[in-house]
Amino acid sequence: MIIFLSEGMSSAHADEMIKGLNDFGVTAHRTVFGDRQVVVTSIGKPGSRPDDETLQAGIRSAYHVERILVVDTSCQLANRQVRPEGSVVRAGTFSVGGGHFGVIAGPCTVETERQTCETALAVRDAGATALRGGAFKPRTSPYAFQGLKREGLKILAKARRLSGLAIVTEAMSPEEVKLVEEYGDVIQIGARNVQNYRLLEAAGRARKPVLLKRGFSTTIEEWIMSAEYILAGGNDRVILCERGIRTFEDYTRFTLPVAVIPALREMTHLPVVVDPSHAAGRADFVLPLAAASVAAGADGLLVEVHPDPKSALCDGRQSLTFEEFKRMMRQCTDVRACIG
Amino acid sequence: MIIFLSEGMSSAHADEMIKGLNDFGVTAHRTVFGDRQVVVTSIGKPGSRPDDETLQAGIRSAYHVERILVVDTSCQLANRQVRPEGSVVRAGTFSVGGGHFGVIAGPCTVETERQTCETALAVRDAGATALRGGAFKPRTSPYAFQGLKREGLKILAKARRLSGLAIVTEAMSPEEVKLVEEYGDVIQIGARNVQNYRLLEAAGRARKPVLLKRGFSTTIEEWIMSAEYILAGGNDRVILCERGIRTFEDYTRFTLPVAVIPALREMTHLPVVVDPSHAAGRADFVLPLAAASVAAGADGLLVEVHPDPKSALCDGRQSLTFEEFKRMMRQCTDVRACIG
Amino acid sequence: MIIFLSEGMSSAHADEMIKGLNDFGVTAHRTVFGDRQVVVTSIGKPGSRPDDETLQAGIRSAYHVERILVVDTSCQLANRQVRPEGSVVRAGTFSVGGGHFGVIAGPCTVETERQTCETALAVRDAGATALRGGAFKPRTSPYAFQGLKREGLKILAKARRLSGLAIVTEAMSPEEVKLVEEYGDVIQIGARNVQNYRLLEAAGRARKPVLLKRGFSTTIEEWIMSAEYILAGGNDRVILCERGIRTFEDYTRFTLPVAVIPALREMTHLPVVVDPSHAAGRADFVLPLAAASVAAGADGLLVEVHPDPKSALCDGRQSLTFEEFKRMMRQCTDVRACIG
Amino acid sequence: MIIFLSEGMSSAHADEMIKGLNDFGVTAHRTVFGDRQVVVTSIGKPGSRPDDETLQAGIRSAYHVERILVVDTSCQLANRQVRPEGSVVRAGTFSVGGGHFGVIAGPCTVETERQTCETALAVRDAGATALRGGAFKPRTSPYAFQGLKREGLKILAKARRLSGLAIVTEAMSPEEVKLVEEYGDVIQIGARNVQNYRLLEAAGRARKPVLLKRGFSTTIEEWIMSAEYILAGGNDRVILCERGIRTFEDYTRFTLPVAVIPALREMTHLPVVVDPSHAAGRADFVLPLAAASVAAGADGLLVEVHPDPKSALCDGRQSLTFEEFKRMMRQCTDVRACIG
Repeated sequence: MIIFLSEGMSSAHADEMIKGLNDFGVTAHRTVFGDRQVVVTSIGKPGSRPDDETLQAGIRSAYHVERILVVDTSCQLANRQVRPEGSVVRAGTFSVGGGHFGVIAGPCTVETERQTCETALAVRDAGATALRGGAFKPRTSPYAFQGLKREGLKILAKARRLSGLAIVTEAMSPEEVKLVEEYGDVIQIGARNVQNYRLLEAAGRARKPVLLKRGFSTTIEEWIMSAEYILAGGNDRVILCERGIRTFEDYTRFTLPVAVIPALREMTHLPVVVDPSHAAGRADFVLPLAAASVAAGADGLLVEVHPDPKSALCDGRQSLTFEEFKRMMRQCTDVRACIG
Repeated sequence: MIIFLSEGMSSAHADEMIKGLNDFGVTAHRTVFGDRQVVVTSIGKPGSRPDDETLQAGIRSAYHVERILVVDTSCQLANRQVRPEGSVVRAGTFSVGGGHFGVIAGPCTVETERQTCETALAVRDAGATALRGGAFKPRTSPYAFQGLKREGLKILAKARRLSGLAIVTEAMSPEEVKLVEEYGDVIQIGARNVQNYRLLEAAGRARKPVLLKRGFSTTIEEWIMSAEYILAGGNDRVILCERGIRTFEDYTRFTLPVAVIPALREMTHLPVVVDPSHAAGRADFVLPLAAASVAAGADGLLVEVHPDPKSALCDGRQSLTFEEFKRMMRQCTDVRACIG
Repeated sequence: MIIFLSEGMSSAHADEMIKGLNDFGVTAHRTVFGDRQVVVTSIGKPGSRPDDETLQAGIRSAYHVERILVVDTSCQLANRQVRPEGSVVRAGTFSVGGGHFGVIAGPCTVETERQTCETALAVRDAGATALRGGAFKPRTSPYAFQGLKREGLKILAKARRLSGLAIVTEAMSPEEVKLVEEYGDVIQIGARNVQNYRLLEAAGRARKPVLLKRGFSTTIEEWIMSAEYILAGGNDRVILCERGIRTFEDYTRFTLPVAVIPALREMTHLPVVVDPSHAAGRADFVLPLAAASVAAGADGLLVEVHPDPKSALCDGRQSLTFEEFKRMMRQCTDVRACIG
Repeated sequence: MIIFLSEGMSSAHADEMIKGLNDFGVTAHRTVFGDRQVVVTSIGKPGSRPDDETLQAGIRSAYHVERILVVDTSCQLANRQVRPEGSVVRAGTFSVGGGHFGVIAGPCTVETERQTCETALAVRDAGATALRGGAFKPRTSPYAFQGLKREGLKILAKARRLSGLAIVTEAMSPEEVKLVEEYGDVIQIGARNVQNYRLLEAAGRARKPVLLKRGFSTTIEEWIMSAEYILAGGNDRVILCERGIRTFEDYTRFTLPVAVIPALREMTHLPVVVDPSHAAGRADFVLPLAAASVAAGADGLLVEVHPDPKSALCDGRQSLTFEEFKRMMRQCTDVRACIG
């Protein structure tokens, strides 16, 4: 059960409500959703006491309540019913969800100022609305290049000034969340950290939107519950990003389960973008996977683009050239025009 | 190594070539591809003796040879290099591959003449070019309804006369292949039989095209090798049909791995159609999956349609109504117009 | 609902009962289980009409009935409740299930009389109770060696005369089932044919036991339902053989899901043997996987053994030498002595 | 390439060597392995320059080097070749690896002092050598009970004083690593954090052993590389814990891929323990999975035990009673006596 307090109500009013609920044996959690104080009662199965009509009536009579929503899944604030029209997440020039299509493009890794800025201008001119680029890189090997770190963030900030594009970049720890908040616009949480709950809590406290990638074998329910951690922490600006799951199929790097798009649309109000680059693992499959994602209703794309893929420090095999990205944008724009 | 004999050469000439190859320690297989006699030398790794230039020169000098093709995978006749432009498979009004888009629609199971004929007319009017419907049904339980069998084939034949649509229907044994040849137009081999080699051999001897579904966890290579069985048997009219694979993801019935479409296009000349109905397992996801498949470059679709899905004997949950199918066709036609 | 007729009742009596059931709107299937006539009413959910106590009372009063069993899964004759003590399947010297441990060993493929007979004697002396060896080989490529066929069966029959071991060998079509019945003792159905229903029906008509391998991604329920096809056909001597499933894990050829052993013991009375050779795909992992299977309660093992694995025509990498097989047998015998 | 410096060499000597390597274009990483300074050169493919014999000779002549090891995988310090005899990891009464069998048992979650202490005594008396129990609980839902945190650690410390058992408990962030170091004996890193590189780095700096669980779909290589992060950080006391992977099979909670045990033994010197409780997800399957793991060569077990599973706050369904745990220990001890 989610209780939205009336406009203008303070956290003190919510705390008071929680005390009242506790007296009825109901535990509850307080947070902020958009500009409203919200109280979420603990999971509790459908039909159990907290959903009791008497309880709801009691709450309405004792507190300033705008809306009470009872949902039938363990996903609460992320539930589609909370915002049936879909959430729009905005960061500067970048908008995604609720009818807005957002395209995030750029190199896997920030290598040099020139590489980053050149890419920013090229993808902007082709229609991208945000720039991606890794400063903190999660690498399988501890001996591999780990990213330019703060130096990389500074380069990204320059690329923003130059291109006007919002910056999407990854954070791997609460400290890095703060740095990305300082230099960037959207905090990316990578596939490997999708259930790193301390990081999700930090993202919940951040004042910038969060792009949450799906883990290699996270179920859809688990993934949405990870988003719920961020929402429960007070940050309702979460974008979900599918990047392929791990299956027996090894012809591509990962398997893009395209049905995830209507599935998420059914379950959650959060925008859904697709990363065809990691799913495919090879540049020549990025266009068909991107077009398929758009046709299935994705709210946006996250694509790796590099001025010279062959010389890329990381993931060059799956990066598009500027020319290929332009072609992909043309095709995806056309496909998007066909669908509702 | 595939050796295409010159036009007009007989099987006797091919047999003679095989004897000659045997003398060089090379085993070989004779078949017909299109209207030509073909000799395929046994797998043998790239670089091994049969690929020897001297051997090729010897073959050319001693026999009437049109073309010798050396491919670097175990897939031979199904290899893209054999027909780089892509195969077109035709059956009556139905054409698929090489630029032709084929839509096969109809009920999971032939239940009654009325249900079948009504559906045939409705899907034809909405743009389908073939009718599907099961007479022999592979069922998990031996006690479940197993299809109307020959009676069902007769109903399908009537629906063809009425609608003009080609008939696609499943065979589960060599005997059923013969019956489907007699009454239908395209022999479907189901996911569970994708590596039923005796059935594939029977399909190789058939004079009608074959639609070969992918198994729940067949790799792409294994699937193409199953098609190779049919080609090696002398039937070069094979259509591949993806219907979703089995993964940890259980939100949908199966997982549609959309990258299979460009993967097959790279590896084989055979047309690729997608069955979004079995992949999704629910009607409301069929449209997005169909549109995604078309956007990714599929050559066709296979879709379950029923006059009254709620009363269907089988798979009603995933069947479209006539109205939903019309909507799907409109959207897929639009998307198809956008892509190369 | 399964109705076991009294001893001595004929099929005519069962047919009469089915007519009676039909009059109550209940469809039913007649077969033989052991030496009894049996009627299985069609699936029908638990609680639905056929399970009605009145109906049961009616059946008991009108027919000669020994036992009526109502099971709560779609698996009927294979259900553990049918024989809570477990089935013993016997073929000559080979017994498996219900406390009997059966070890089937031998080459992947019958290559020569010498190779087969030598292996038969060696595995018998090490403790194997049956000989395996393929005469009809399911091969991914149509151009690969397909087995010695009838010639191979004759060699196996000789090896039986020599060693006294029962012969387990694969059939891929109803015709091959008949040949294996003629020359061998246990009909093996391979992983690729686990849902080849026409083949399962033929195995149901056979008078020899059947060893049914699990498919690469068959669920446990589907697999048992495939066994149910054989039981429903009148053959109650079915052995289930786990051989590894397909997962994302590619360090071994397949993944051996050891929990399948207690899972099957809970669901079905059929004996369970494990094939560690195909699961591992490499000889040095066969011993630990075999020991693990025995420790988890397997009723038997199916192991590939070859006099000279390096020269094997097929699967040499996963074949044990005679010496390795002896060591495996010693260890597995010790482990088996520790468990209930 | 791993360069082990001679006994007594300081980090300054290692830094000097790195500078020297840099001059040859080789990047390198310094750490401590056991009591020795170690320099690991960056991945570099086999055959590439750093492996050059001249370079090795140069290093040997210029620095105090005990051993240079060139391994052919990206896994370096975790490589079996580094300690072919296997590592023994010790923490108080608990020893695992290199012939030592370690059994960690206890409740999923520390609930009360009484529950924890009672369990500690019971599992100790049955033969366990360490106590597990969660104080920081990774929960899918932000609204679920998150553990007693520091209070839970204090209870665990009391249980250690009472029982003498070493404490194994999970940390989810660098801060929690410090707390677990203070109160516990072995730092557990959970499946969800197996690629949380900042946490792995913190574990590398810790002065207590680390038990690293496999992720739901981490490959064996990725998992070992995560252990390599800890080793590269200077902590060579790492225990690997398999807990089941995610596959299409849903009869059990996860699939226990028993071949992982010989696979890890081949690749790494680190001890391997198995958690049958999470793999099975149900108490009655824990014994067969534990016995199978021991038979396959596991160095230890991690098992959930609760005084009253039905009342457990978390994972009660998969927890053993004291009596069941005793039975499991007896069987596993017997099986272990049979194997090398």
